[in-house]
Amino acid sequence: MADRSLVFDAAEYRGRVARLQAAMVAQGMDALLLTAAADVFYVTGFLTRFWESPARPWFVAVPVAGDPVAVIPSIGADLMARTWMDDLRTWDAPCPGDDGVSLLSATLRDLVPDHGRIGVPMGLETHLRMPLADYARVRDAIAPRQFVDGTAAVQRVREIKSAPEVEKIRQSCAIAGRAFDRVPEIAGPGRPLDTVFRDFQRLLLEECADWVSYVAGAAGPEGYADVISPAGPDPMAMGDVLMLDTGTVRDGYFCDFDRNYAVGEPSTAVRKSHEALWQATEDALDELRPGMLARDVHRILSEGLTARGVEPGGGRLGHGLGVTLTEWPSFTPQDKTELREGMVLTLEPGAWVAPGRMLVHEENIVLRADGPELLSPRAPAELPVLS
Amino acid sequence: MADRSLVFDAAEYRGRVARLQAAMVAQGMDALLLTAAADVFYVTGFLTRFWESPARPWFVAVPVAGDPVAVIPSIGADLMARTWMDDLRTWDAPCPGDDGVSLLSATLRDLVPDHGRIGVPMGLETHLRMPLADYARVRDAIAPRQFVDGTAAVQRVREIKSAPEVEKIRQSCAIAGRAFDRVPEIAGPGRPLDTVFRDFQRLLLEECADWVSYVAGAAGPEGYADVISPAGPDPMAMGDVLMLDTGTVRDGYFCDFDRNYAVGEPSTAVRKSHEALWQATEDALDELRPGMLARDVHRILSEGLTARGVEPGGGRLGHGLGVTLTEWPSFTPQDKTELREGMVLTLEPGAWVAPGRMLVHEENIVLRADGPELLSPRAPAELPVLS
Repeated sequence: MADRSLVFDAAEYRGRVARLQAAMVAQGMDALLLTAAADVFYVTGFLTRFWESPARPWFVAVPVAGDPVAVIPSIGADLMARTWMDDLRTWDAPCPGDDGVSLLSATLRDLVPDHGRIGVPMGLETHLRMPLADYARVRDAIAPRQFVDGTAAVQRVREIKSAPEVEKIRQSCAIAGRAFDRVPEIAGPGRPLDTVFRDFQRLLLEECADWVSYVAGAAGPEGYADVISPAGPDPMAMGDVLMLDTGTVRDGYFCDFDRNYAVGEPSTAVRKSHEALWQATEDALDELRPGMLARDVHRILSEGLTARGVEPGGGRLGHGLGVTLTEWPSFTPQDKTELREGMVLTLEPGAWVAPGRMLVHEENIVLRADGPELLSPRAPAELPVLS
Repeated sequence: MADRSLVFDAAEYRGRVARLQAAMVAQGMDALLLTAAADVFYVTGFLTRFWESPARPWFVAVPVAGDPVAVIPSIGADLMARTWMDDLRTWDAPCPGDDGVSLLSATLRDLVPDHGRIGVPMGLETHLRMPLADYARVRDAIAPRQFVDGTAAVQRVREIKSAPEVEKIRQSCAIAGRAFDRVPEIAGPGRPLDTVFRDFQRLLLEECADWVSYVAGAAGPEGYADVISPAGPDPMAMGDVLMLDTGTVRDGYFCDFDRNYAVGEPSTAVRKSHEALWQATEDALDELRPGMLARDVHRILSEGLTARGVEPGGGRLGHGLGVTLTEWPSFTPQDKTELREGMVLTLEPGAWVAPGRMLVHEENIVLRADGPELLSPRAPAELPVLS
C-alpha cells in the first residue's frame, strides 16, 4: 500500500520538533508529554480514526534535545512504524492495573533529568487524553521530576502553519467549496433537513474528503436559534434560511466554514443581515495584520456589524484552524493572543436578525505579512436562493 | 423543527439517573461530575457533533438525589433546553481566566455538602474532558469536598443497555449491514482503497447513517498487517483480502463491526483462517452467559481458534459498545468484569494467517439471560469473493 501515514516528509516534522524544543528552552522545560490526537499527529504524522475509541491512551514524549519517543498500544505499532518516528515503545492495551503507566514513567525517567520539568498541555482549550488516576500515578513515579503547564509552548508553535500545512487546509476548503456549490442539487423547499445533512456529507465525500468530522446547521424563518444541533426530519419551508457548516478532513487537516441559503426569496431583514455579515468580513479581510491581537478581530467584526445597523451575535467570532476543527486563539473580547504571520484563522461573525434568530457567516484565511489570504472560496455577496 | 435532541423520552433519562444515584449511594458518593461527550449525552440526551471542537468544556453534575444540573457554554443553551434537563447554568466560553471554573465550583458547592465526595471518572478507558489546570482550580475551590474515582459507578450503569438503547444499536447495525451488502458495488480488483473508503461512507449515509464516526480497514495478500490505518491510493490486487470496519452512528448510538472480502479466489490459508474465525464466533454465540467474566470471552475465542489450527491475534478480542465506539469491558486475559444481562458487546477474534498478516472478524450482540442475541446481521460463513 502506498504510504499516506506520514502526510508530509520527515523534514516537516523535524522542523516542528525543533520549534517545540526552542519553546521548551525559552520556558525552562526539559520535555513535553503529549496525549491528545492532534498533538500526536502534529509531531509524528500518525493519522488514524482509531482515536474514536476511548479505550487506549497514546503518548508522545518530546525531549528538549533529540528525537521524540512514542509510547503507544501495540495495536498502533505497525502504523506508527510507517511514520518518521524511530523510537517506539509499546504495551498491550487496555491493561487493567498498568495501562502504560510503568512504560511511560520509565520513558520519562530516561529522557528527563531528576529535577527536570515536563510540560503537559493543561490550559485553555486543552485536555489530557489519559485516565486521570493514571496521570497521578505517573506523576508520583517520576518524582522529583515535575509536570508543568506546557500549553503555551504547544500553542505558539501549532498556531503558525508551515507552507505545506496551509496547502492541506486550502485543499480541505476547496473540497467543501465544491460541495457547497452543489447544495442546490440537494436542498430546497420540502426537503427534510436530516436528508440534506446526509446528502451534504455524501457530496463532501464525492468531492474527495477523506472523512467528514463535523456537519452542523439549521433552517428556520429569519435565521436560526442555534448552530450546533443535529438535523431533525422536518422539511424546509419557503422563507427559511438554511445554514450548513462543515469541518471536512483531508490528510488530517480541517476546513471550517459555513454557507447560508435562502429557501425562496429572503426577507428584507435577512438580506440586510447577510449583507452586513459579508461586509464586516470584508472589513476584516482588509484590516487584519500581524501584530494585532485576537480581540481586535472581535472588535473589527462587531463594529462592522453595528455600523451597518445589525446587532452582533454573542460568543466568539472566529478562531484558529488546522489539525482540529477549532484551535487557539479565539476571537473574543478577552483573548489577547498576538496575531502572527502564518496563522490560519476563521472569521465567523454572527448577527441577530430577530429575537432568537441569527445568521452566521464564516470564511477561512491564512494571515500574511500584508494581510489575510482567503483559503475558502469567498461566499457570494448576495444570499443564494434555493427554489 | 421536529425535536430529535432528546432521542428518548424523559423517563429513559430519569431511569438512568436513578441507577447512577443508586450506584452513588452504594459507593458513598454525593454527586458525579461528568465531562465526556458520551457521559453528558447519556444523562441528558444532548446530542451534537460540536464536541469535535476542543475549545469549550461541558459539565453535568448529578447529585445523589434530585435532578442533574448542566453547567455549559451559552452556545449550547438552546439545544440543551430542548432536552429533559431543567437546571441549566451557562457562561460565555471560551473565557480566558475563568472558563466555567467559578460557575462549576459554585454549582458543586450548591449540590454537595461540605465534606461530600464527588465522583469523577478517572479510571481505565476514561478521560477528563476539561483543562487539567481548571480541574485543579475547581478541586481547590470546592474543598473540603473531595473528588474521588467515579469510574465504576458510571461503568456499571452504562454497561447495561435499556430496551430502547438496544433498538438504537440494532438500527445502526442494520444500516452498516445494508452498506456491507453493497460493497461489491464499490470494491474489486483495481479499485484504489481510498476510493473504496469514500464510497463505503457514502453507502452508509445512503442507508441512513446520521454520520460515520469511524471507518478503518486494509487490503493485502493473505490478510493485513494493521486494522487502524487510513486508506492509501494503491489499487486492490487479485489475491488481496479487503477488510472494512465501521462505527456508524444513528441517534447517537454506534455499531462496530467489520466484514472481509476476498479479491479473487482466496488462498487455502485465508479460507482456513476465515472459517476458524467464524466458527470460534459461533462458539461464543453458543456459550456466553451472564455471570461469566470478560476474560472468559477471550478464552473461548482464543481456544476456538487454536482448536481449529489457527493462531489467535493479540490484543483484545472484543469489547462493550453503545454511545461510544468502544466501551467497557474489554475481552483481554486480564479483564475480570462480570458479564450481565443487557450488555451490548462485540465479539472480535483475530487470527494470524502468515507472519505479519491477519484477519479480524467482528459481530455485535446483546447478552440475554439465555445467551447472546445478534444485533449485527451474521457474516456469511464463506468469505465473499469480489471479482
